[in-house]
Formats: sequence, structure tokens, C-alpha cells
Amino acid sequence: MSRVTARRRTLRITADGQVRRPDTLAVEEPLELRVDGEALTVTMRTPGNDVDLAHGFLLSENIIGSAQDIVSARYCAGADRCAPGASNMRTHLGFPETPSESTAGQNTYNVLDIELRTPTPISTRNVLTTSACGLCGRTSLDEVRTRSRYPLPTPGPAVDPAVLTTLPDELRTRQKVFASTGGLHAAGLFTPEGEVVAVREDVGRHNAVDKVIGWALRENRIPAHDLILIVSGRASFELVQKAVMAGIPMLGAVSAPSSLAVDLALETGLTLVGFLRGDTMNIYSAPERLTAVPLTAHAD
Amino acid sequence: MSRVTARRRTLRITADGQVRRPDTLAVEEPLELRVDGEALTVTMRTPGNDVDLAHGFLLSENIIGSAQDIVSARYCAGADRCAPGASNMRTHLGFPETPSESTAGQNTYNVLDIELRTPTPISTRNVLTTSACGLCGRTSLDEVRTRSRYPLPTPGPAVDPAVLTTLPDELRTRQKVFASTGGLHAAGLFTPEGEVVAVREDVGRHNAVDKVIGWALRENRIPAHDLILIVSGRASFELVQKAVMAGIPMLGAVSAPSSLAVDLALETGLTLVGFLRGDTMNIYSAPERLTAVPLTAHAD
Repeated sequence: MSRVTARRRTLRITADGQVRRPDTLAVEEPLELRVDGEALTVTMRTPGNDVDLAHGFLLSENIIGSAQDIVSARYCAGADRCAPGASNMRTHLGFPETPSESTAGQNTYNVLDIELRTPTPISTRNVLTTSACGLCGRTSLDEVRTRSRYPLPTPGPAVDPAVLTTLPDELRTRQKVFASTGGLHAAGLFTPEGEVVAVREDVGRHNAVDKVIGWALRENRIPAHDLILIVSGRASFELVQKAVMAGIPMLGAVSAPSSLAVDLALETGLTLVGFLRGDTMNIYSAPERLTAVPLTAHAD
Repeated sequence: MSRVTARRRTLRITADGQVRRPDTLAVEEPLELRVDGEALTVTMRTPGNDVDLAHGFLLSENIIGSAQDIVSARYCAGADRCAPGASNMRTHLGFPETPSESTAGQNTYNVLDIELRTPTPISTRNVLTTSACGLCGRTSLDEVRTRSRYPLPTPGPAVDPAVLTTLPDELRTRQKVFASTGGLHAAGLFTPEGEVVAVREDVGRHNAVDKVIGWALRENRIPAHDLILIVSGRASFELVQKAVMAGIPMLGAVSAPSSLAVDLALETGLTLVGFLRGDTMNIYSAPERLTAVPLTAHAD
């Protein structure tokens, strides 16, 4: 069994009675992220695509700007201190990101050390994040809003609202783990024409976003001026920030945005779409990227 | 208008066309929590009940064990450094937690300083949390699992499954902000007989839990050996941990638990109920606290 799902016994109670049965659950495990051997943060995540997650997270935190800023990403054995080049490192960039059970005995694959090309002194006071709160975990309010190195394109892609309405279903049909566990968030990158580019799932919605953005970074697709980010839940400040930091001009959320998410979208010029359900949506900012074609013309 | 909700303009698109209208959103703002003047963490939360949030958070982090461990909770003006007793402190324990617009000009009410009765040296490296990840935000995996000072009662309360099934609806009907915004998480404390004790909403589900637990702490109801915690979403490791730290023997979640949530519940003896929907549920641990009365007997 993969580390993405796990089975646990459960007592299922219904109006008809009780039955013991196994239940498939989404795996949640801590990932300690280290930079040049120094502990940076711990996030509760679903194992897999950890290197992508690290790339996306470090981009969101403005610690890196391209994949070339990272020399290596290595799992460390256990929670022992793990300096670059030390013998207890088991993996390198390109290592299968979901290790098999047979190799997991000595290595938890829950400690990932990132070696930067240009060593950057990092205060853990300034970069504190967890599975559902990306850029917010700072010890000073003054640092919550960081500046993106990739200004959003003006006007950027033109997106047909009728295309947008199809994306949540596209996302859901690709949520393999959700289908078996009912417990995962998803984030997806799509082209303006509605073609899926990448989809990731995670117990933490911010992790899911970090994973797709990190994937795009490794594919040299950042700034992603030509992509749309779709998330399965709400749109928080941090998700808007992550999109902005990656140069993504449009974020669509199935559920509600927060006030601060809207404010940041207005400030940065990101097109924020909320309540993207059925054939309806709310546009909170930069509606000029949506084509004015009436949806009714597409309903025929 | 309160700081709990805010209105923003939106362009609503449906199959019938487009219309501009105002939309009511849940407010999301950062809260910087300080302990004895030292920045501890920033969480993105919905303003209100911040003092409760601080109490619940510090209990979860094992920094305090009772309300008496806190001398004062004071909002600081702006993001300026704010030492206990400094003149820029505006509020004290008992200050209205949702300040009016008229007083918000000089004080953002987003920086809260907690003065402990016994000053405790706190490394920010060890207590990093955000709106949706309570105890996970630590820089060392070894510290993720902390020990509760309140062992769960054995056997503890006996709860009728038929009562449990009514609690999600009870919670939802008390979600005032969700009703207007569609974007809030909720946590509620209930008696074993199904009586509501406290309900709180927040953009961060962990904040909602901190707020009800912090309220209970201030009401001297911790350890809450006789209460049930119900959450509107999924059950993560951190939510189980928060319940355990507060001595709450039963946690019910409307959605799925994670693998680690189940593991921690099994380890600590907490009764973890997932997929609490309609008249069905899954019991993942300590089912002995549920009475064996068939639900069908209550359906008549």
C-alpha cells in the first residue's frame, strides 16, 4: 500500500446497526523542511511530491525564484541532523518521491533537506508555515505581505467563463485519493482553454497548492502567466499570495474567499473567482481577464 | 458593520447573465500572538474572541494549564513592540473582543500580548502555528507529540449515538456567520446529552477549536472530561491533539479523519468519530464511550 492512503479499522454505525470494517484514510504525516541543514518548518502533509512541495513553499516564501536556485533535495534518515553531503542522506533530486515500504524502515522520508545554490541566511522567525497557512506564519505582521518577483501579466490570458465552469469537475475527476478517502484537498493548474496541466492532492490545502506550483517551477513554467489555478475549497489570503508569487494571474475557488484574499487580489491585480459551482461564479477582482461572452451562448 | 464580516463588490455570473452586487465575506486578518512581549506566532483568523483563541492555543501548546496561568491579555497599538505595562496597550482581560469601528483607527486589534503569571522562556522555534495547523508547526518532529496534562477519563461519558447524530445540525444552525458568507469553519462543545455549550466560527478550523477550548478554560471547565467537541470539517492530527490537551474525551467530525488523527486517538484513548452525517458515523477509536443502543430504537 502506498503512503498516500492507509487503512484503519472502523466501527460503522447506521440506522441498520453496526458493522466493523476497514476504512481507507488519507495519510497525514509531518514533513520537516530544512534549508542547508537548518530546520525551517514542519508541515503536516500527505507524503508524495515532497520535492515539489518544497519548491513551491520556498517560492511562496520568496526564498527561491527558480528551480536553479536549488542544488539538491535529499531525505535525511530519521530526525538526525543532516548536513549536505552527510552519509545519512538517502535520496537526491529525482528520487522516487513516494518511497516503497521496503525502504521506509530506516528512513521516515519525513525530513527533507534543501541545498540552495546561494546559501541564504534564514531566520526561522520569519518563515513559519504549516499545512494550511502558507505565508501567514510570520512573527511580524509587517512581513505578512511579501512582494512577488513576477508581476502579473496585463492583460494576461483571456478566459471564457464557460470554460471556467468546467474546471472544478475536471479537478474532481482527477482526485484519485479523494475518491477513496473523502478527505483530501486538491489544487490544479489549467490552461486558459481548460486543459489540465497538473493536479495534486493533500490533507493540507496549502500543500496541494505548493505541490502544483513547485511542479511548475521544476518544469520551468514559472512565472505561470498563462495558467489558471483552481482549488477545491475556500480562497484564503495565503492561497492568493501563493498564486501571486508564482505569477499566476487567475485563481478560482469552489468555495468562498475571505476578505483579505479579495483585498490582496485587488491590490495585485489577480483575477479572483469564488463560488465556482455549476454554471455560476463570483468575480471579485480583475474581471477584464474573463471574456464577455454570455454563458447562455454556450449553453446551447 | 462588525469585523467578523465585510462586504466587497462582486460580479456575479450565471447562465442568465452578469450582475454587479455586494457580497458578504468572512473577515480574515492576521493575529500576532505575543507572550510577555515576545512575538510567538501569527495566525490568520476571523477577529473576535481573540482572548479565547489565545487561551486555547497556549493550552494546546502546553504553555499554560489553567486560566490562572495568564495575568492579562492586552491588544497592542499597531505592530509596535509592546512590553507589558507600556502605554500603548489599549485593552485588558475583559475588554470587548470585537472592538467597534470607532476605536479601530489607532489600534488594529491584531496584536495581542499575553502576560503569564510565571514567565516562561519560549523559543519561537518550538511553537509555530497558524490558522489550520496547531501543534504541527514545530521545527523538530520529535516535538510534534506533546503530552497532555489532563489524561482522558476512563470510561468517561456515555454517549448515545442517536444524540451524536443530531450535533452537526445543532452546530450548523448556530453558525451565524457561515449563513451569511458560506465560508467559515465551526467548532462546538456539547454535553453528552446533546446540549450546546459553546460554538465558535473562524476562517481557520484550528482557530475555531482554540476559541471554544479557550472559552472553556476561562470558564474553568478544563479538563473538559464531560464534553464532546464537534467540528464542521475534517479531523486532523492537530484537532485530535487539541482535544486531548483539553481533556476532551470525544471528537466528532463531519468529514474524514486523517491516518495520524486516528493513530493519535488510538494512542490517547480519545473517541474519534468521523463522517458524522445524517444518521451514520464511523467510530475509529475507543467506541466504549458510545452506548450500544441501536439507532433504530430511536428512529421511532
